[in-house]
Amino acid sequence: MCDTAFVATPPGFDLPSLDVQASLRVLDLVGIFAFSLSGALVGVRKRFDLFGVVVLGCVTAVGGGSIRDALTGTVPPVYLRDETYLWVAILGAVVGFAFGPRLERFDRTLSVFDTLGLALFAVSGALGGLALGFGPLGVIFVGALSGVGGGVIRDVLARETPQILYRHDQLYATAAAAGALVVYLLHGRVPDLASQLVAAGIV
Amino acid sequence: MCDTAFVATPPGFDLPSLDVQASLRVLDLVGIFAFSLSGALVGVRKRFDLFGVVVLGCVTAVGGGSIRDALTGTVPPVYLRDETYLWVAILGAVVGFAFGPRLERFDRTLSVFDTLGLALFAVSGALGGLALGFGPLGVIFVGALSGVGGGVIRDVLARETPQILYRHDQLYATAAAAGALVVYLLHGRVPDLASQLVAAGIV
Amino acid sequence: MCDTAFVATPPGFDLPSLDVQASLRVLDLVGIFAFSLSGALVGVRKRFDLFGVVVLGCVTAVGGGSIRDALTGTVPPVYLRDETYLWVAILGAVVGFAFGPRLERFDRTLSVFDTLGLALFAVSGALGGLALGFGPLGVIFVGALSGVGGGVIRDVLARETPQILYRHDQLYATAAAAGALVVYLLHGRVPDLASQLVAAGIV
Repeated sequence: MCDTAFVATPPGFDLPSLDVQASLRVLDLVGIFAFSLSGALVGVRKRFDLFGVVVLGCVTAVGGGSIRDALTGTVPPVYLRDETYLWVAILGAVVGFAFGPRLERFDRTLSVFDTLGLALFAVSGALGGLALGFGPLGVIFVGALSGVGGGVIRDVLARETPQILYRHDQLYATAAAAGALVVYLLHGRVPDLASQLVAAGIV
Repeated sequence: MCDTAFVATPPGFDLPSLDVQASLRVLDLVGIFAFSLSGALVGVRKRFDLFGVVVLGCVTAVGGGSIRDALTGTVPPVYLRDETYLWVAILGAVVGFAFGPRLERFDRTLSVFDTLGLALFAVSGALGGLALGFGPLGVIFVGALSGVGGGVIRDVLARETPQILYRHDQLYATAAAAGALVVYLLHGRVPDLASQLVAAGIV
Repeated sequence: MCDTAFVATPPGFDLPSLDVQASLRVLDLVGIFAFSLSGALVGVRKRFDLFGVVVLGCVTAVGGGSIRDALTGTVPPVYLRDETYLWVAILGAVVGFAFGPRLERFDRTLSVFDTLGLALFAVSGALGGLALGFGPLGVIFVGALSGVGGGVIRDVLARETPQILYRHDQLYATAAAAGALVVYLLHGRVPDLASQLVAAGIV
């Protein structure tokens, strides 16, 4: 588990682990692009230069996945072993750096990509927990933390106040938890890909 | 070590690992209840709603154990594999939510549960380090970080100032370190359970 | 990988792992001394007492290595299994506590030891990534995070503002990334020790 396989399949657990791995990879890459773009937009607002924007984008992008991997014992994290992940993160940050200053509806765009990253990582974290045979609370916990992790790290590093626990943002953590719960409930009842799309859409 | 056993026993190390596992579980569950209650009380003071209080309670509750597990290489953390842990955390948070607003001696109650969680996780962290054959400094380090970890995470997320390093609270980290040291010194001289009670009592 | 060997060598990867381990140990111990001294100086400025200074020094000292070990899956971290590391950290903190108040050029001294720790951990993190067969981006990422990690943790705990992402400090993260890149490029072309010294010198 430590090195060779991304998702461990406990004996007697019949999850089609190849499908899950492929789905996780696609979810991850889209989520990484979205979160990196959101981190880059925060950096643009703070008037960082290109290097600062790329650093903030990359750290935001891998934050949620790092939390998921740490909690599921998947080390080293996949983004260190497969260079595609960090290239996608850099791409997202460069796109944010190039287009950020010209955006008219800045906050709305930031919010869209933040929510997209949140949804994708909540689902991917929940799938990681499912693959390890966690129960419902464990799956929800891993999914919610994976979803909100990147955004919290971004806000702490950019010295914006992380807003996860405050009233008007409780919807934020709630959305992540709800997405993970949907993954848990749908799992095994409908094809995996469909359940993931439903869960991400609901979030 | 990675998956099947909670506490790894290095070859030639004669710790009765079954007893340690059972003791760790009891210490953990009581510590989780106490820390979750303390997190819930902080959330009540911040006027979070029920969902926010439960989230803050749960994160506080598993913080110390997560640090212990990360440092001892016990992943995934036990609270994700055994649903009892998160149910106990939710219970503690709900109790805090229900009774917090009616408490007269609020700060004193918060302090009692915070100290109880600290003591229990310091001992449990020290036992985890002992079971892996760490030396005295390693045992003290793991114990102290496990003890103070949950409270620091709670304070950062609730935007209270974490107080571990400041003068009048140095007693706090000192207490955690002292408890871990007592576990180290007593280990092998008296029965394990007795030494744990002595250490927790001293803290 | 989890327990017996500090640096795992993937099959078919011809890195002379014994040399790397010995080099990593020397780099680590010097870096730990330097970072612990830098943490102690921050504690002295905040007028912590001896215990607080030692705690802040130790946490700063092991921060970068902990991040490297977490990202490379080397748990428990080596400093918990080899007591030398924590003794060196305590020594660095005591030296900082003894001489800090008498320093005339305080900020400059702090900066020298901070940069030394940064350089050494960036190189050591990059070597850890190389030994696991990461590609260039992975090596740079691990190196940069290992280099800046201890300082960020120190600043957060001492409630100084972490400055890694801000304009005049982008040089800081850039230096760490550059050092890691140099390790990657030189690796296999010149003897390992020479490349490490070059990389640390450039940083």
